[in-house]
Parts: sequence; structure tokens; C-alpha cells
Amino acid sequence: MPVKSPRKVASRVPVNGSGAAKARTEKSNTILRAAIEVFARAGYFNAKVAEVARAAGVADGTVYLYFKNKDDLLISIFNTMMDVFIAQAQTELAAIDDPREQLRHFARLHLSSLEQDRDLAIVFQVELRQSTKFMEQFSETKLAEYMKILREILERGQKRNVFRAQPNSKLVAKVIFGALDEMATNWVLSHNNYRLTSMVEPLMNIFLNGIGK
Amino acid sequence: MPVKSPRKVASRVPVNGSGAAKARTEKSNTILRAAIEVFARAGYFNAKVAEVARAAGVADGTVYLYFKNKDDLLISIFNTMMDVFIAQAQTELAAIDDPREQLRHFARLHLSSLEQDRDLAIVFQVELRQSTKFMEQFSETKLAEYMKILREILERGQKRNVFRAQPNSKLVAKVIFGALDEMATNWVLSHNNYRLTSMVEPLMNIFLNGIGK
Repeated sequence: MPVKSPRKVASRVPVNGSGAAKARTEKSNTILRAAIEVFARAGYFNAKVAEVARAAGVADGTVYLYFKNKDDLLISIFNTMMDVFIAQAQTELAAIDDPREQLRHFARLHLSSLEQDRDLAIVFQVELRQSTKFMEQFSETKLAEYMKILREILERGQKRNVFRAQPNSKLVAKVIFGALDEMATNWVLSHNNYRLTSMVEPLMNIFLNGIGK
Repeated sequence: MPVKSPRKVASRVPVNGSGAAKARTEKSNTILRAAIEVFARAGYFNAKVAEVARAAGVADGTVYLYFKNKDDLLISIFNTMMDVFIAQAQTELAAIDDPREQLRHFARLHLSSLEQDRDLAIVFQVELRQSTKFMEQFSETKLAEYMKILREILERGQKRNVFRAQPNSKLVAKVIFGALDEMATNWVLSHNNYRLTSMVEPLMNIFLNGIGK
């Protein structure tokens, strides 16, 4: 799933100018970054909050000032990274006119954000999928925003007459997400022996043109 | 992922005519069916082998005569169900001439086998995804056989000139699997408020024709 490195995130999170608030955001991001690394290495179920604290260079108790528990860390990783991805996608897509190029850019952004950060890719493609409870929460919140952006690209293309009107944009968005997600999982499990973003053009070819003659 | 109810499996597993071997296969299938139900309800991590034994109506020790441990139960569910799906797909596809109809039939078989068995769908779409170790094993074994069938349909269609030669069949197979898998996960998380097989025709439309004009 689409995200940016939280190290980059830190500078993009809005702060109110107060030094204390900024320090709080930075500490929170340091802990989230450590959690991504620990969850990717040890697996979410085996990982301990104490290991996250150690990796972040803070006392165990400090983690609990920012996050309720291990579940809250995982959910916060997802929400924070999705917020950054969504903000970046919206800004960058606004500067592109052709809906086909918007779709291409969106696909590239999704795959490159994971390619740039293997630990995050493991957490998104494997660790986040482990419980129905989590998956239900995710599919109702940030993932819905992700899908909305994709649907808007498709509907814009339908209005501009560059995309067909059927099947409907909601279904097409799910299929495109499913394909991007499968490419990302394959890449994680293959131990990155190719570039994930090399999949963008073949995927666009399939989706725009179909496989039929 | 594609499967048949293990109750149906039992009669399809080859037996050597010996009553003892047949009874052994039936007992093993009864335990696997119970494991599917317990894993779907409790979640794999929380589930206990003792609960599986109780649901199967056997003593705890009996489960260990057939399966090494809880991991082995999960892997056996995957392998058994995939074997049945693959055998069924191969038999049924052999009777279809048009590669486009073969692709449609394969997609329908994948989705209907999950639609018919919600517990199994939960195990396949959620519980099986929870560890990198499992996922790596799966992607190297039975899933490779699944992908091979899909690739053969695509390559046959390329030779018959009904499918385009590019992108290559390996990538197209992954994209189609990714889309079917995403449809199945969506359906599990939506608590089945629609028929999963209603997705077959819109998916075929997207893959055969593309969304571009």
C-alpha cells in the first residue's frame, strides 16, 4: 500500500509553531518509524512494545504516552502513512490534465512509495493483513479515501470520453487496487529481485487496452 | 483463493480400496473441516488444537496422529483445497475450446468455490495471510500450480490470436489473480451482502476490453 517514509513525513505534518508540539510530533514519528522496523523484522504478533521503545531510543513508558498499545501502533502506522500518501496524490494529481496520465501517476506513486521502503512494504503487505478486525477497520477508513481518489480519476476519464463508462468506476477502482496490491505482495515475497515500479507500464497496458484482440 | 468444500473433497480423494486407508482419509478430512470452522471463527492465532479436536468430535491426541501441529493444519487446509481446485479446473477446462471461455470459467470457479464456503473464504483471504513465512511457502507451491493453469489459458489464447501477445502471460496471470483475490477479500469483509460470482462478467469485461476508449 501507498506511503512515504515517515522520516520524510515528519517535516510534512502540520505543526502549530509551538516547539513543544513539534517535539511531540517528532517523537511520535520516531516511535512509529521504530515500530515499522521492528514489526517488519520480528512480525507483528511476536514483536514487543519494549523492542519498539529500544529501537526508538526511548523508555518503554514513553511509547505509552503516545500510543495506547501495540494495536494502536499498527493502526497509527497505517493511518499516518495513508494520510501522507493521500495528500501527496491529491497535490500531484491536480497538476495533471489527462486522466490516463493521472492513472499512470497514481499507480507509480503507490508502487514507488513501497519500493522506497521495504520495511514499510512488509508491514503493509503482510503484517497489516493478519486479522479480520484490522482489515475491516482499514477498509472502512483510509482505504476508502484511497479508493475515492482512484474513482475520481476514472470518472473524470469517463466524462472526458477517454475511459469507457462500463464497468462502473467503483468496480474498476477495486480491480486496479487489487492488481497494484498483488504486484506489491509479489515484490515483497520475491525479496526485491526486480524494481516494483517496472510493473507500472505493463499494468497500464493491460488496464487501458485489455488483453483481448 | 479457490477451493471446494472439504465435505465434497472426501469423496474425491483417491483411495486404494482398503477400508482402513479410506477411514483414515475421512478422519483427516473431518479434522480439516473442523479446523476451517474454528480458524474462521476464532482466528488462527487465537485458535487452539483442542478446540479443533472438540469441533471434529475426536480426542486431542487424535489430531496429532494426522497433523504435527496447528501450523500443519493451516498448511494442510491450503494444500488440500488447492489440490481439489486444481484437479477440478484442469478437468473442466479441458472440455472448453475458446480460451476466452476458459478464462471466464476459471474466474467463476475461483470465486464460486469461495462463495459456497464462507468459513473457507475467511481462512483463505485473512487467516492464511498472516505471516511472511506462510506466504512465502504458499507462493512457491500450490499457488504456482494455480498460476500455471492461468498462464496456459493465456498462452493458448495468444497462439489462437484471441489474446494480445504483450504484456506477457506471467504478468497478466498475476494481475488477474490479484483482481480475483481482491474481489474475494472485499466480499469476505462486506459480510457477503452480494454474490461474489456477480463479479465474473464485469472482471472479464475489464480484462478482455480494457477501460480505455
